[in-house]
Amino acid sequence: MTHPPFVFDQWANAHQQRIEQVLAQTLPAETVLPERLHAAMRYAVLGGGKRVRALLSYAAAELAETTLERADAAAAAVELIHAFSLVHDDMPCMDDDDLRRGKPSCHKQYDDATALLVGDALQSLAFECLVDTGAPQALKQVQVLANATGSRGMCGGQSIDLQSTGKRLSRSALETMHQYKTGALIEAAALLGAFAANETAPQLINTLMQYSQHMGLAFQVVDDILDATADTQTLGKTAGKDALQDKSTYVSLLGLDEAKSLVSHLHTQTLALLAAFGAQADPLRGIARFICERPF
Amino acid sequence: MTHPPFVFDQWANAHQQRIEQVLAQTLPAETVLPERLHAAMRYAVLGGGKRVRALLSYAAAELAETTLERADAAAAAVELIHAFSLVHDDMPCMDDDDLRRGKPSCHKQYDDATALLVGDALQSLAFECLVDTGAPQALKQVQVLANATGSRGMCGGQSIDLQSTGKRLSRSALETMHQYKTGALIEAAALLGAFAANETAPQLINTLMQYSQHMGLAFQVVDDILDATADTQTLGKTAGKDALQDKSTYVSLLGLDEAKSLVSHLHTQTLALLAAFGAQADPLRGIARFICERPF
Repeated sequence: MTHPPFVFDQWANAHQQRIEQVLAQTLPAETVLPERLHAAMRYAVLGGGKRVRALLSYAAAELAETTLERADAAAAAVELIHAFSLVHDDMPCMDDDDLRRGKPSCHKQYDDATALLVGDALQSLAFECLVDTGAPQALKQVQVLANATGSRGMCGGQSIDLQSTGKRLSRSALETMHQYKTGALIEAAALLGAFAANETAPQLINTLMQYSQHMGLAFQVVDDILDATADTQTLGKTAGKDALQDKSTYVSLLGLDEAKSLVSHLHTQTLALLAAFGAQADPLRGIARFICERPF
Repeated sequence: MTHPPFVFDQWANAHQQRIEQVLAQTLPAETVLPERLHAAMRYAVLGGGKRVRALLSYAAAELAETTLERADAAAAAVELIHAFSLVHDDMPCMDDDDLRRGKPSCHKQYDDATALLVGDALQSLAFECLVDTGAPQALKQVQVLANATGSRGMCGGQSIDLQSTGKRLSRSALETMHQYKTGALIEAAALLGAFAANETAPQLINTLMQYSQHMGLAFQVVDDILDATADTQTLGKTAGKDALQDKSTYVSLLGLDEAKSLVSHLHTQTLALLAAFGAQADPLRGIARFICERPF
């Protein structure tokens, strides 16, 4: 009996649909008090995005040989944290961006106060859905996610970013900023998926940490390349913002060609990391290609 | 051998000093990257407030016969959530208040973007410190706290409050709003303290839930009375704001005299709830008196 060949697009589509349904069930209905807040939370989370973080959770769960059902809470939690960060980042006092995933951002569709509360409540909901499963490693999941979200993770990265605008950063300072700002949550996405299993070998966790460190970096370099080269319609968010806001990026620091070859180098390294694994690493290989080969 | 008589002021002072030290150790130092964010987090949390929620956690832990050391994480977590809510509530897009605990509020001392991130990171830190203890009932603590914080708790109450400004609320609508806005976290403070024990009898949890529902309501009624009658210097925050913002309050709804007699009635009911307990309920009795007899 031979397995059918792995087709990443099919796998990604199926899991994107799955996480969309899981999120729709996790978020309180618009008919539940307070209705306006719940409507705004659903607006901010549902119906958009590539769900890269959820895909990572599912792919890591597959590597850890646990079921999709058990990985749902992990995938939902990381997407809820990601959505909360987008809502707050778009607010006037932060990046002041009117457009997100091709739609008015949350504070434009609703109002600033509601957007503030949407982000706050999405963060709580992420932790709530992790513990509601009662999974054996749920405490570890809460710990990893809280750490990746807070001042030594995503929020800290935003703060470093604010302090850095208009300054020319060294490459190492830029890497530190992005490790906090996006790398920590990408790593958490993978680890939470693996911790959905009853137990997880340290060696597996080690591979996933290296994988996600490479992918977090690649993801950001590609983001910088796209911001510099794609148009607003293609991106679904305002393009060319980095240059406009005089932000240090991998493109401004390395130039476009070297930025592209860094992505290609990270892709190769990542595939080497996974060489010891069989078909159960195919989703992680597919995600690596998807991240590194987004059209540019 | 007789016990010395319980003196609430001494108990409260000792536990206020204790939680201050616990919080100072839980918050990352100002020398840790990102320094400005960590400084702002410490500014927002340390050196102020009556710490009513932490006192509730410690008092409930005492009723559940567990140690102070085990209750520290619970007390810190609820104070971190409370501090996060104050920072976000004071922002221009919410209550727009420049003064908090007699000092410039966080966004005035720092800036709006930093205040936004401070609140976000304090929320994560609350969950992080709960799980770092590895206590047997830590998952239950995370669940209770996340639920009390999110859209069906504190954040939801803020949203209802925003929707209600300028409207005349019924008494039941006002109670619902405050149950979400402040009651849920007060209840969580008591429950988290009890869940610091290795196991907790359902009967004890039941008593604590009734206790904190009474106290949550009393706390809000007293707040409304103070807002209507005290001056800004005494309060350490802007007084008379409710009338200025045309908000429904227990004073506007019931009148001052009936509001005061409601507090007195709640106090009596609460003491009756605790009648079956001995000296280990003295801290809870003292907190009830403290909440119900704040000078007005």
